[in-house]
Amino acid sequence: MTDIVPVILCGGSGTRLWPRSRAIMPKPFLPLVGDRTLFEATIARCPLRAGFAAPVVVTGRKHLGHVEAQLDGASGASVIVEPAAKNTAAAIALAALRLPADAIMLVCPSDHHIGNPQAFAVAAKAAAALAGEGWLVSFGIEPKSPETGFGYLKRGEAIGELGFRTAQFVEKPDLERAQAFLAEGCYAWNGGIFAFRVKDFLEELAAHRPAIAASVAEAVEKGREDGFRFYPDARAFAGIDSESVDYAVMENTSRAAMVPADMDWSDIGNWQALHAARESNADGNSVTGRAELVDCRNVLVDSDGPRVSVIGLSDVIVVVDGDEVLVTSADGAQKVGKLSGAANQ
Amino acid sequence: MTDIVPVILCGGSGTRLWPRSRAIMPKPFLPLVGDRTLFEATIARCPLRAGFAAPVVVTGRKHLGHVEAQLDGASGASVIVEPAAKNTAAAIALAALRLPADAIMLVCPSDHHIGNPQAFAVAAKAAAALAGEGWLVSFGIEPKSPETGFGYLKRGEAIGELGFRTAQFVEKPDLERAQAFLAEGCYAWNGGIFAFRVKDFLEELAAHRPAIAASVAEAVEKGREDGFRFYPDARAFAGIDSESVDYAVMENTSRAAMVPADMDWSDIGNWQALHAARESNADGNSVTGRAELVDCRNVLVDSDGPRVSVIGLSDVIVVVDGDEVLVTSADGAQKVGKLSGAANQ
Repeated sequence: MTDIVPVILCGGSGTRLWPRSRAIMPKPFLPLVGDRTLFEATIARCPLRAGFAAPVVVTGRKHLGHVEAQLDGASGASVIVEPAAKNTAAAIALAALRLPADAIMLVCPSDHHIGNPQAFAVAAKAAAALAGEGWLVSFGIEPKSPETGFGYLKRGEAIGELGFRTAQFVEKPDLERAQAFLAEGCYAWNGGIFAFRVKDFLEELAAHRPAIAASVAEAVEKGREDGFRFYPDARAFAGIDSESVDYAVMENTSRAAMVPADMDWSDIGNWQALHAARESNADGNSVTGRAELVDCRNVLVDSDGPRVSVIGLSDVIVVVDGDEVLVTSADGAQKVGKLSGAANQ
Repeated sequence: MTDIVPVILCGGSGTRLWPRSRAIMPKPFLPLVGDRTLFEATIARCPLRAGFAAPVVVTGRKHLGHVEAQLDGASGASVIVEPAAKNTAAAIALAALRLPADAIMLVCPSDHHIGNPQAFAVAAKAAAALAGEGWLVSFGIEPKSPETGFGYLKRGEAIGELGFRTAQFVEKPDLERAQAFLAEGCYAWNGGIFAFRVKDFLEELAAHRPAIAASVAEAVEKGREDGFRFYPDARAFAGIDSESVDYAVMENTSRAAMVPADMDWSDIGNWQALHAARESNADGNSVTGRAELVDCRNVLVDSDGPRVSVIGLSDVIVVVDGDEVLVTSADGAQKVGKLSGAANQ
């Protein structure tokens, strides 16, 4: 089998983990779990000489500096600089058009945490094998709770050793449906990780979204190279519809498959999720920076400097970043992006 | 009647309202409620030409700068600079020995909030009248809740128009007793405000604590003046026992009286008490500094600079002061003084 080409999608607006994550320094580029940034960990999960080729990073102009600094000269890596953010269908198409027709792409968001990289590697290779047979493969993340913030994939008939046909794509369900999915047992979270053979992906995109396919092709044709960077043509790219690859391709193709992955995954979609991904002590408290906690349970403190003293609280998150202090209940964490500080960056 | 001489006691260690109040800038000198500091408000409650003489301030060397700055040249004010902190019996004796024998002293802590200064003035004059008849008078603060952090005074037989003999001094009770006191109705909080005629106070001090009386007398005799400042002799003062005026004098004298005072009083003994003394909006939230509150009730925010965003919390206090951030439950506020930041100043 040929090496898998990691296609790393790198963007984000930096609102849900505000104030640590900000528009100018969004989630992928921060060391949120452990010492490495999420972007660095994403690159490291797909190592050269272990079945993976050098990565292709798709990012925007404003994050290019972070990407290049954190790639740190990764051997053979290339970067596609999107002229505008046009969601995942166009971003993946850009990478596909820069690769050989029979290359296997592994599309990875760069702002997720994966606690078990071995399980990731196993799933990646199984997904790549199915992609090599013509399937368009989603990772189906083993669901741990009835999350209403994720799409779900329903398992169909088995394919090969580890895979299944995807019987159904379900958009974010309400709590009752999400609970039913967990009880039923044949649903997985859609983690936004995919394996495609380039020619299959482009065929399906052309079949279901011919306008996107044509515009991206023109943008690549008229683009320019600058060392390891590639700049698609901005004018051709500007008119493209912003659509997710799920909506544009996966829900329409008859070749959708899924590979189950139980790999301690988190999209770190808010501070509560980040608390879950970090190590906590016996009381469930997790501290980054200087802090003193008294009579606290399940408290997350993350300070970039000032000491934080917390007394008598449970399920609370305290974040200090420069001139901003955030204090939220665990449940309130999902509203962080709507705070005026986060929204008006 | 001669003018009442306000004797303002001014010290404090600055731990219970840490981190805003610190050892170098304790509670009396901060504008905790409204625009004036507690010290300034204490001075302003005893205005010249309204029955009050110029104040005598008793403070320590380390707070002298704050006192002088905040007296702002108050006409005729004098300051006694204690060589060491020796509690209230000695502090009041120092002031007494610098005043004429028939002067009426009104002893006022400088770190309390009084929301109704008119009621204070009425009680002060009633207390002074009783003091002029030879009584040693405590203010009996109308109790609003079964506080276990205060001493209580039990009313005895009525004296004059407003006063009572003090039937009993009760040290800080447990909750059950405090509840019984409130139900019984003849108990008041001991607010640490007193009216004495100088010669009566000194007589009773000499009778019950002759050693303190003698040492303070020696310290004053050997002291030196420096403009409006008076420095008692440090060596004579050094050996004095630290005793409260309640313990040394009030609990022993047969001339103890009390005047009820319902004047929206608070000792602002912790952040929860400060929250109660400050103005709050309809949700019970009170903000000092920049803040955004979402889904919050009974939240106090006090920031000296950074913006504080709070989501989904009730009965929580958030304080930002320089390099310290405090987040506590309302109940936890009483433990603030034991935090390492507060204790190790």
